[in-house]
Amino acid sequence: MQVNGKAYRAVGWDAGEQAVFWIEQRLLPYRFELVYSRDPEAVARAIETMAVRGAPTIGATAAFGLALAWRLEPARFVSFWLPRFRRTRPTAVNLFHACDVMEQAAEQQLSADAMVELACDYAAREVRANRRMGEIMAEYLAVGQRRILTHCNAGWLAAVDWGTATAGIYHLHRAGERPSVRVDETRPRLQGARLTAWELQQEGVDCCLQPDGAAAWAMARGEIDAIVVGADRIARNGDVANKIGTYALSLAAREHGVPMYVVAPSSTFDVHRATGHDIPIEQRHADEVLWMDGVDAEGELRQVRIAAGVPASNPAFDVTPFSHIRAIISERGVYEPPVE
Amino acid sequence: MQVNGKAYRAVGWDAGEQAVFWIEQRLLPYRFELVYSRDPEAVARAIETMAVRGAPTIGATAAFGLALAWRLEPARFVSFWLPRFRRTRPTAVNLFHACDVMEQAAEQQLSADAMVELACDYAAREVRANRRMGEIMAEYLAVGQRRILTHCNAGWLAAVDWGTATAGIYHLHRAGERPSVRVDETRPRLQGARLTAWELQQEGVDCCLQPDGAAAWAMARGEIDAIVVGADRIARNGDVANKIGTYALSLAAREHGVPMYVVAPSSTFDVHRATGHDIPIEQRHADEVLWMDGVDAEGELRQVRIAAGVPASNPAFDVTPFSHIRAIISERGVYEPPVE
Repeated sequence: MQVNGKAYRAVGWDAGEQAVFWIEQRLLPYRFELVYSRDPEAVARAIETMAVRGAPTIGATAAFGLALAWRLEPARFVSFWLPRFRRTRPTAVNLFHACDVMEQAAEQQLSADAMVELACDYAAREVRANRRMGEIMAEYLAVGQRRILTHCNAGWLAAVDWGTATAGIYHLHRAGERPSVRVDETRPRLQGARLTAWELQQEGVDCCLQPDGAAAWAMARGEIDAIVVGADRIARNGDVANKIGTYALSLAAREHGVPMYVVAPSSTFDVHRATGHDIPIEQRHADEVLWMDGVDAEGELRQVRIAAGVPASNPAFDVTPFSHIRAIISERGVYEPPVE
Repeated sequence: MQVNGKAYRAVGWDAGEQAVFWIEQRLLPYRFELVYSRDPEAVARAIETMAVRGAPTIGATAAFGLALAWRLEPARFVSFWLPRFRRTRPTAVNLFHACDVMEQAAEQQLSADAMVELACDYAAREVRANRRMGEIMAEYLAVGQRRILTHCNAGWLAAVDWGTATAGIYHLHRAGERPSVRVDETRPRLQGARLTAWELQQEGVDCCLQPDGAAAWAMARGEIDAIVVGADRIARNGDVANKIGTYALSLAAREHGVPMYVVAPSSTFDVHRATGHDIPIEQRHADEVLWMDGVDAEGELRQVRIAAGVPASNPAFDVTPFSHIRAIISERGVYEPPVE
């Protein structure tokens, strides 16, 4: 999607440089930096340190990194590089999926160029899934539902291009439909304020931030026509694990008759989890709540502590029951909860 | 209440210094500073700049400031000082109430000392109301309800001493009942993270911060026994205007059968507003959402911008219907919604 009027992807292959490139997401929205690398170790570190983040983007980045590793050190590909990449992040299902795809190709002794081609295909497939989900989502949103609330970043930075939750919004916008997006800032890591708002603005989509606690009130005031979010994992019964705060949104959505849509590729569905109760919820470090980074008046990046000597609970996700959701949209189809 | 093991009030009169003192709340929790002043203009500025905040604390501070003004310049008391104080903050009902009380006393040509006495009485009355509300609240909380969630700061900093929502918690704690308090950080101004958590820790009460979006999930997980909040204004039908995010809490509380209590002195009731729909909701500046202050690793106070070039919606309050509330507790009695 657009950055300063030029089309970018969160991660990709530069044929001229014969290198992988990615957007350094930790500096956004303050600085936009593209990083180029031919070094698979640098790519692994970019995933580890969250320079790239978002499950589909992580998967594609690993595919490119492994293509570089195959070109550089085919002899150590299986013994060293595959485990190196599988270790970078513990929970992103797409990471393991990408590693499996590259491992199978290596077993067939593909050429170095063919491995790069395969990684490009892997990324392209993600983008096609997003476009397809966006088309479906846009149809739902096209009927008088223009004021859309989203939470966290399920945008193109997280999903190579187009995004999952945002794809429908971008489709609407490009069709001249003028969607207006209310963006939850999404504490504690502020992915809404930093990534989603930046994405939407670069693309020219009207948007407005709000504190997470203001979302229910916006619905009560009739200011929201639809909610669109992504998902981190979906259980077999349709329960959705997503960024903390999503469950609270679902309660207000139900109260005020606001339809809530979950947009996620089929790789997000976990057939091994019967219900949301079976999905493990990661407790992250209290420092994510207690410290905040930003830029000061001189433009310097700084970290500040916003509370003193107090413990903090920091569950990364919560679980929304399928029954609170109007529809789950994947590239393979639409799932609606049974009418009760 | 306790600060570093010594009893303080948010604002009060120092007989030895013949001066009003207040706690500089903008520096908390990083620095604890008491300010002493005999200058009514400095007192007015402390209210204006939110060095002191919280409706009951503002009222008491104005009473002390006007006592200083009466001593210094009785001839300009009515023409200059009363309007000067009434202009400091637009919405705190208690401010106008305190100004009215001091105006009536001035009309009776009280001595300078008697005016100081009157201001002390005014503050003492607030504290008595808080203690009384706390006793009532503690009875509700005493039956197996130890894990208490609160939002924003309805503590002693806001209400001279004891606090409104916190008074019951302090009573329980002093009775050896070991309450455990989950504190919503309360974006955008973080009064929970900065003021409530600090108060509770100074008093030795067990507490834990959480992002506002985590509250509903904590209730879904069965981690919360009761919610206790303050109020900014209560309509005739029992609808409660309180800090943004309170309404979302009320939806989750109802969903999970968690009793929600509102604790507020009778001066918070506005007989001129029939329902919550009639209460005006202040939209505050977007910068409160977009900028954040804290201390860096070296202990320097700094302001950082957490988002770039995006508008923000910043409603200061929302309205919770009386029917979502288990009971409103004031010093004059307890109000429960009619059973539907």
